[in-house]
Amino acid sequence: MSGPCVIGVLVSGSGTNLENIALRVEEGFIPGRIAIVISDVEEAYGLVRARRMGLEAVFIDPRSFPDRSSYDRELIRMLAERGVDLVVLAGYMKLVGPEFVSAFRERIMNIHPALLPSFPGTSGVADALAYGVKVTGVTVHFVDEGLDTGPIILQEAVPVLPGDDEETLHQRIHEVEYRLYPEAIRAFCEGRLRIVGRRVEILE
Amino acid sequence: MSGPCVIGVLVSGSGTNLENIALRVEEGFIPGRIAIVISDVEEAYGLVRARRMGLEAVFIDPRSFPDRSSYDRELIRMLAERGVDLVVLAGYMKLVGPEFVSAFRERIMNIHPALLPSFPGTSGVADALAYGVKVTGVTVHFVDEGLDTGPIILQEAVPVLPGDDEETLHQRIHEVEYRLYPEAIRAFCEGRLRIVGRRVEILE
Repeated sequence: MSGPCVIGVLVSGSGTNLENIALRVEEGFIPGRIAIVISDVEEAYGLVRARRMGLEAVFIDPRSFPDRSSYDRELIRMLAERGVDLVVLAGYMKLVGPEFVSAFRERIMNIHPALLPSFPGTSGVADALAYGVKVTGVTVHFVDEGLDTGPIILQEAVPVLPGDDEETLHQRIHEVEYRLYPEAIRAFCEGRLRIVGRRVEILE
Repeated sequence: MSGPCVIGVLVSGSGTNLENIALRVEEGFIPGRIAIVISDVEEAYGLVRARRMGLEAVFIDPRSFPDRSSYDRELIRMLAERGVDLVVLAGYMKLVGPEFVSAFRERIMNIHPALLPSFPGTSGVADALAYGVKVTGVTVHFVDEGLDTGPIILQEAVPVLPGDDEETLHQRIHEVEYRLYPEAIRAFCEGRLRIVGRRVEILE
């Protein structure tokens, strides 16, 4: 990369991680800029937050495309047009397809509210509670073709406390997410991440 | 239970957890006594450690029994004869069968060198390293009919550090095991564990 790291963010929901990342970019903690925010959900509040922060924010309607592959190609086109170096999934609920992964290989990040490989999928917090673990956590990982299977960049443990329900546990997990995701993005933008097999080395 | 908690320990290997537990019993940290140590491996060093500490220690040869079920029945008989309240698996490599589980339902504990449900089975440390997680840990759980699937009593996270190999990581995990297993056994012996569905509540 020459110049600052160009970031594209995909959201489907409220966009709290997006807003937090955008703030850390503004502060200079992350040496980059957010070039575009894309949502697959028209009413995603993440779009509102993005525009309020002066970011380009667009809804791309999946129903306007015959299949996921053509939808993904449109996303790839928009991101590439803006010279995006890193795609950040921030509560993006659509599974990105193989073409997308291969267009941005080792340049797509996701955050998951559990310690992968435990509790992949869309209900990591509820699944951890139902299983009865005493420790869960947060995982930031690169996205590959699988469901939450890509190389792990950062993880941090979060205790499950007596009396926790999904809301109290998710709240504790979110606090860690707000710290961990910017750290991983910063390390990427500073060129300090090296993938060796399945392991991600973080250079000092 | 009336009187002190009677503990039976099953080992297959070096018996470091057994020795640590026996020391915590001697100190009075665990309010109980170890009535017998049984191994399915003749040369298990755990038998030597046990005898050195003045414990009854016996090798029961699996090859003297036609199948696992009859082997397990012999173990059940020996443990029941000594009034064992709690069976502690301490590096016992044989999978206990359904009869054994049902004879000591919610009274068999195991320790696993990973944060279950991640990395079950016999190579939890190597599997975690190969996967590339940044956080692994230790799990103490009740044993049910599955492989490392029973209700979780205690868990503690252990970081995977840059440059870790199986030996350095296992060493860090062992240190946590030496603390966590006695805590779980103590809580059991004090009658402070309550299983509710898949969750284990630890009463104060």
